[in-house]
Amino acid sequence: MFSGFVGEYSSLWIAAGSGVLGLLFVWMTSKMVMKNDPGGQQVRTISRKIQKGAMTFLKREYTWILVFVLTLAVIIFFAIAKATAVAFIIGAGCSILAGYIGMKVATLANGRTAKAASGSISKALGVAFQGGAVMGISVVGLGLLGLSLVYIVLINLGLKEMLFLASLKNATSLIIGFSMGASSVALFGRVGGGIYTKAADVGADLVGKVEAGIPEDDPRNPAVIADNVGDNVGDVAGMGADLYESYVGAIISAMVIAVAAENTEGVMLAFLIAGWGIIASIIGVFFVKAGKAHPQKALRNGLISSSVALLLGTFLLSKFWYPTFDPFWSVLVGLIAGIAVGYTAEYYTSGKKVRQIAEASKTGPATNIIAGMATGMLSTAIPLIAIAAAIVIAYGVSGVFGVSLAAIGMLSITGMTVAVDAYGPIADNAAGIAEMADMGQDVRERAEALDAVGNTTAAVGKGFAIGSAALTAMALFVAFAKTADISIIDILKPSVVAGMFIGGVVPFIFASATMNAVGKAAYRVVEEVRRQFKEITGLIEGDAEPDSERCVDITTRGALREMVLPGILAIAIPIVVGSLLGLTALGGFLAGSLISGVPLAIFLANSGGAWDNAKKWVEEGNLGGKNSDVHKATVIGDTVGDPFKDTSGPSLNILLKLMAVVSLVFAGAIGSIHFCLAGLF
Amino acid sequence: MFSGFVGEYSSLWIAAGSGVLGLLFVWMTSKMVMKNDPGGQQVRTISRKIQKGAMTFLKREYTWILVFVLTLAVIIFFAIAKATAVAFIIGAGCSILAGYIGMKVATLANGRTAKAASGSISKALGVAFQGGAVMGISVVGLGLLGLSLVYIVLINLGLKEMLFLASLKNATSLIIGFSMGASSVALFGRVGGGIYTKAADVGADLVGKVEAGIPEDDPRNPAVIADNVGDNVGDVAGMGADLYESYVGAIISAMVIAVAAENTEGVMLAFLIAGWGIIASIIGVFFVKAGKAHPQKALRNGLISSSVALLLGTFLLSKFWYPTFDPFWSVLVGLIAGIAVGYTAEYYTSGKKVRQIAEASKTGPATNIIAGMATGMLSTAIPLIAIAAAIVIAYGVSGVFGVSLAAIGMLSITGMTVAVDAYGPIADNAAGIAEMADMGQDVRERAEALDAVGNTTAAVGKGFAIGSAALTAMALFVAFAKTADISIIDILKPSVVAGMFIGGVVPFIFASATMNAVGKAAYRVVEEVRRQFKEITGLIEGDAEPDSERCVDITTRGALREMVLPGILAIAIPIVVGSLLGLTALGGFLAGSLISGVPLAIFLANSGGAWDNAKKWVEEGNLGGKNSDVHKATVIGDTVGDPFKDTSGPSLNILLKLMAVVSLVFAGAIGSIHFCLAGLF
Repeated sequence: MFSGFVGEYSSLWIAAGSGVLGLLFVWMTSKMVMKNDPGGQQVRTISRKIQKGAMTFLKREYTWILVFVLTLAVIIFFAIAKATAVAFIIGAGCSILAGYIGMKVATLANGRTAKAASGSISKALGVAFQGGAVMGISVVGLGLLGLSLVYIVLINLGLKEMLFLASLKNATSLIIGFSMGASSVALFGRVGGGIYTKAADVGADLVGKVEAGIPEDDPRNPAVIADNVGDNVGDVAGMGADLYESYVGAIISAMVIAVAAENTEGVMLAFLIAGWGIIASIIGVFFVKAGKAHPQKALRNGLISSSVALLLGTFLLSKFWYPTFDPFWSVLVGLIAGIAVGYTAEYYTSGKKVRQIAEASKTGPATNIIAGMATGMLSTAIPLIAIAAAIVIAYGVSGVFGVSLAAIGMLSITGMTVAVDAYGPIADNAAGIAEMADMGQDVRERAEALDAVGNTTAAVGKGFAIGSAALTAMALFVAFAKTADISIIDILKPSVVAGMFIGGVVPFIFASATMNAVGKAAYRVVEEVRRQFKEITGLIEGDAEPDSERCVDITTRGALREMVLPGILAIAIPIVVGSLLGLTALGGFLAGSLISGVPLAIFLANSGGAWDNAKKWVEEGNLGGKNSDVHKATVIGDTVGDPFKDTSGPSLNILLKLMAVVSLVFAGAIGSIHFCLAGLF
Repeated sequence: MFSGFVGEYSSLWIAAGSGVLGLLFVWMTSKMVMKNDPGGQQVRTISRKIQKGAMTFLKREYTWILVFVLTLAVIIFFAIAKATAVAFIIGAGCSILAGYIGMKVATLANGRTAKAASGSISKALGVAFQGGAVMGISVVGLGLLGLSLVYIVLINLGLKEMLFLASLKNATSLIIGFSMGASSVALFGRVGGGIYTKAADVGADLVGKVEAGIPEDDPRNPAVIADNVGDNVGDVAGMGADLYESYVGAIISAMVIAVAAENTEGVMLAFLIAGWGIIASIIGVFFVKAGKAHPQKALRNGLISSSVALLLGTFLLSKFWYPTFDPFWSVLVGLIAGIAVGYTAEYYTSGKKVRQIAEASKTGPATNIIAGMATGMLSTAIPLIAIAAAIVIAYGVSGVFGVSLAAIGMLSITGMTVAVDAYGPIADNAAGIAEMADMGQDVRERAEALDAVGNTTAAVGKGFAIGSAALTAMALFVAFAKTADISIIDILKPSVVAGMFIGGVVPFIFASATMNAVGKAAYRVVEEVRRQFKEITGLIEGDAEPDSERCVDITTRGALREMVLPGILAIAIPIVVGSLLGLTALGGFLAGSLISGVPLAIFLANSGGAWDNAKKWVEEGNLGGKNSDVHKATVIGDTVGDPFKDTSGPSLNILLKLMAVVSLVFAGAIGSIHFCLAGLF
């Protein structure tokens, strides 16, 4: 298709250009967010507190990440390759930067959204969504820009010594470090962030609502700011880092698979689709206009127009530039699978299903819990069938490369999906600020309406995050097999069976560890809040200020400390299994982790979401309404669901991708260790 | 080794002889149970009610099974082979007979145990354990006798037309129907029984304890008899059918695998080990003598001496008769894996772990639930590693045949493990009878001490059942691959990946369906108990008798109705998946179901056990004791755990084996359908 030297990788420059375009959009949108009225004194003070708390968390988290990344970089530098280590650092750096920008703007947008809500709901939606869009487009813009620039540099360095194809192969084998960097930040962002957000939530509720008997979001509660920070930490920075990881992982596995088949054009195609995806996402942003439409519909319009734009572009690419690959169908089935997983989540966490759980709560909390568990378990069927179908169809159309194309298809509109997700915590914060700053019934109601929409989109977003994690991990698994030069992984071989069984159990252990982590970190928050209520005179009476910063600090420390064990597990287990049982068994291990991990993640996320909404439905006045026995039962279900849906469930996304990336990056080293060990025994 | 015609299958006659020996032992032990004092009028009345209820349940269940088995037999008769249909019916018939004998004697032993407890705890232990031993040895005796006789007949029929090896191959391909029969009865016994037992339990508690405020096991409660029946239905008949299925499945998969390699001696070896296992189990029974020892220790002595006897026999077989196979090591690792899974269950459902869950209950039911879930999830690690290690080692020593030898090793002492399991509900019933018949503080305490021991052994037994189901399903999976002539199942192939993903999700759906089934069946019980309290005048005051029979009847109908959907799922899904995606993908599907299903089953069983014991620990007076807030929180956890540990968890054992057996039996038919479908599209 292309000819000549520059042309051979002009697609990379096009992708980089899309990235730059995305960042320009981010810059302009941030300016627009800033132009909105930041509200009165009280609103500004609270918003600043949340922002300060969020930045405190990020700073501390990034310090840990720095230590972690540098340590790992040194290992990669010596054990794998210098360039891989550099790609690793840049991959992590771009993720950190995207998270920082997104959090900064999101915490600037929350107070402004609350203020805008005193005007109209449509204006408030605009501000909140702009805030979210900054995060969304930052993720894809920085991801694609960083990835293409590093790739161009690596290819050029190679070209000094070798021909184009050889240089491309070389660059691809080195750039997988970029994906590992993305995974490292996602590990801290999603797992650490997930522990943080629930520890703060549980801690604030247990002492505030239950022990002291003060309402939710009451400014006297020292943990309330930490709780608000937590929303941003989990659903802005955490979700962003998660999808950044999926996005980068999907593109890189497409590169690895294409290059293994000496399919240069496939590599370029992956970059072109991703580049066009950024533009499609930006197009979608312009379609989010509430006007007279329901905010829910406005957000859905954005998603639909992004999807349509993406498909249109891919269709043209497919028809005119790459008819041999025919990427359209793979991208289509990937996108459909993603949407299917997302909307299945919505179905099982709303309407009839939620009412059934509420009905079951009439006989107490135990039947509430059982009904929620049964619902979550049932909700795994359609997503897994959708993913399985996408794999079979994509493979049928474009071979093994099609699987990675499907993942890219699902993830190309990441800019838009993250924007919709990040909108949620901004609206949530706005509702909290409206409550704390006493902005009046009207404003509170509008802000809460926006928040309610955010809860639904959060369910869809979580589903989408799981679906994309599954498909990305699958693509990374194939890329691992290509890199390790494995052509068959036969499950009739005992070592593969053993690998699969062990892989299947790791998600359960990881879920257990993260659940326990929330409990331990929450306990530290509880102790601190109790201490402040006891030691700060006049706090309960409203005459003294709580020490919110200290609460943020303690929650941060607790969360980061508790994530060390799960983090080490995720990185060490594949290396240990591969070293002991060999690379083929490691392939079985990765497959096993996906087979049990994906349904487990969906089950945890959707059970949690369903319990949450069952509680909300009762609070709307159904089955006795607030403070009835049914309500109490649903509150217990909701509390069980908190770590399910916000910590353990989403953490599994990271686990699955991270283990695949670690296997991919360390494949050579693991192979050598196994060879030595096999020689010893 | 052997020579001449008779010698070539004399091992089958030896195995049949062991079966006969086992049945003689059953007959003698039943006589001994009957010789015990059946107690006074009141004890006899209650015991008879339970027995009548149990028999009502069995009769109704067996009617359903009859319809089911005959329908399926007709299909097999025409679609597979006439002899397979006959083997299928006999396989089901022996299981039914074993369940009938076991239940009959267990329900005769409960009142006698209560009466014996008025003498001494050691005497009561003796009666209860003898009752359990009848069930245990019936299972293995009838299983092995039936299997070897059918096999001898099939071989002899074949010998009229072909040579010995050909006839053996032919007989083996036909006898897999026997395993399918075992699975069909297990499906009804374990799934239907599991739904029954928890529907009765929850129904009795919800109305009795919670609404009417009368104590547990109060004779005024119309559902109390159903509840007591449920203990027998679940842990005697259900557990027996489950292990009968594993036992038969393990032997048959060994036969299929050995015959595929034209390894005649391997077939005979499997029968010899199984035959010796019956004798080893009987030896173990004689070592269960309480005397001055703690009942717990007495039961453990039985298990240890059976294991030692089994290993000794296998060692001699290995050393002198079959040095080329060296079955000793495979049997040893299988046995060790079984014990490891069992004792891991004990570890995670007692002591420190249980205290941690109770501590977590201080902050309410939600943290109790989370702690129990986290414990159950963590408890999956060691069992899966043990199973994986057993597979690798057994394969290393004796090749693929070793995997089935390991399963046989684990299951050879089934007679003993079922005896210990079935002891539990007898002791439980005895405690209930002591309460209902008002036999005095002393007797109640002794009976309850026996019951407490039963709870621990139940945890071990459940673990053992899961472990053996996993290994049997694994062996059946290998046998399926041999039968379908599949030499490689490559997880890099998209259809295999799709099969695995779908297989991985089925256990979640099955668990969800069985949980919902309990809820629905329990609701019917609740309605009936409420009706009786309202309509029978003088019932609450103790002046009128409740209509217990009607309660048993309604629970039975409800349970059997609710198991239709899960049952159809288990049989239809593998046929559908195989027909659509092909036999290799069906192999992936079976592997996928094991990878997620085994940890899910362990998680459900151990979470449930841990919650149960946390509640009991608090009831012993810890952390505020009975009726404290902590106690209330643990009661909620226990109620959630009931369907986990007694319905959904154990049902997964059946699901995994049944899907493998269905694939094995219908392999040819599925292959043909897929061929036709593939031709159509």
